[in-house]
Amino acid sequence: MSDTRSIGIFDSGLGGLTVVKEIIKTLPQESIVYIGDTARVPYGNRSKEAVIQFSLEITKNLVAKNVKAIVVACATASSLAIDAIKQQYPHLPIIGVIDSTALEAAQRTKNGAIGIIGTRATINSKSFEKHLKKTLPNATTISQSCPLFVPIIEEGIINDQPILKEVLRLYLDPLKTSTIDTLILGCTHYPLIAKHITKHLPGICLINPGKSTAHSLKKLLDDKKLTNQSDKKPHHKYFVTDYNENFETTAKLFLNQQIKIEKISL
Amino acid sequence: MSDTRSIGIFDSGLGGLTVVKEIIKTLPQESIVYIGDTARVPYGNRSKEAVIQFSLEITKNLVAKNVKAIVVACATASSLAIDAIKQQYPHLPIIGVIDSTALEAAQRTKNGAIGIIGTRATINSKSFEKHLKKTLPNATTISQSCPLFVPIIEEGIINDQPILKEVLRLYLDPLKTSTIDTLILGCTHYPLIAKHITKHLPGICLINPGKSTAHSLKKLLDDKKLTNQSDKKPHHKYFVTDYNENFETTAKLFLNQQIKIEKISL
Repeated sequence: MSDTRSIGIFDSGLGGLTVVKEIIKTLPQESIVYIGDTARVPYGNRSKEAVIQFSLEITKNLVAKNVKAIVVACATASSLAIDAIKQQYPHLPIIGVIDSTALEAAQRTKNGAIGIIGTRATINSKSFEKHLKKTLPNATTISQSCPLFVPIIEEGIINDQPILKEVLRLYLDPLKTSTIDTLILGCTHYPLIAKHITKHLPGICLINPGKSTAHSLKKLLDDKKLTNQSDKKPHHKYFVTDYNENFETTAKLFLNQQIKIEKISL
Repeated sequence: MSDTRSIGIFDSGLGGLTVVKEIIKTLPQESIVYIGDTARVPYGNRSKEAVIQFSLEITKNLVAKNVKAIVVACATASSLAIDAIKQQYPHLPIIGVIDSTALEAAQRTKNGAIGIIGTRATINSKSFEKHLKKTLPNATTISQSCPLFVPIIEEGIINDQPILKEVLRLYLDPLKTSTIDTLILGCTHYPLIAKHITKHLPGICLINPGKSTAHSLKKLLDDKKLTNQSDKKPHHKYFVTDYNENFETTAKLFLNQQIKIEKISL
């Protein structure tokens, strides 16, 4: 009972590589095909129709690559397009970063007060709240959009630089007076500054979307008996829809290893 | 002798509205049709072929709207696609934000030492340098990419906030030791923080791409006898290729007035 097919993972850009990093840690024997839709990043500003269309195009490509399951590592696509993908591919196991992360937050909180930080599009969509309420109907939530975190992290400003300190202060100070005991890092970029967020909000349990998604995926593969148990070395392939020379650097930032990135057309 | 047809202006997004603002000031009697290709913004990460294709599609749409001249308000399209547009529409007067801005900088500098700030894509393309050398072959240039200016300005952080101060320091301090007497604001967003840039680099003449382009356009219309001299109230129409609800707020930031934005398909 061993399924050597790859896991298909997609994101609007390269941020989803922080999810890949956690999946490799949790499921080191699994092969992975990653698609970053860099030609159309960011999805957060696109209409729902556009996000569904893009997500279906990518899923079709991953299915053609014979994947055994799909991980939607993009928060926007996870929120807007998963139902449409499930409808089109009813037999394909699919998990999203939002449902996985919300579930873990709901399980971890002790007082039911959960904070959510994310891009403006994610926060406006209230996707995490909707998923939290499924598991924890009485949860109280407080959310804060942090639009500058992504560009700052992509600039590699992830250490003790004054800009990062000012931006952390701007976005996190309003959360200090709340009663939250748990904070969802509602964007795949944010784990890169997790330790600074913790310094700013000591004692609050941070939920890392990559780790939550890796745990959900492990459970899904176990449940569906799709785990790879062969001893063969797994392969990890990385594709983007538009290529530029900075990608290797950004990818290294997110994945903590040097990778080869190939351009594909959808 | 009066031509009441509109000026066609396009950009990859909404930043070109700072150019529209200056054109309205300089040529208040002219009607305007603006197209922001928000479905495919930013052009800076696209291949040259893609930028040419997008620019030709938009130009075709503007020509169908019976414009009398085209203003390419996007730095990337201005650099990569103007020749292709001119080739396809040899009788249509066209100016771009890069040639207009470079020309003004070349005319204004006294010592021939010109600084250029822009997005990473614009700086890497060396487009301003190429145009500067046409007018001023002995110009010396120093360029600095400022990738965080656009997201910070789009967040409305354009006053004396600590974040803006830190980012200005990061990007502009390296220019302080140079001999430049003129600085090209090589991105249509930057005029919104011009006064802070001046505080950081006192005594340096800033070249605002919107103003330069408006001057070039006025000269072009005069030369070609295309000016509108009728007393009829001009109309200003704004189109985007993908719509989201934050656009009206961003547009107000750039244009300093409330506008109605309509979605079109190209």
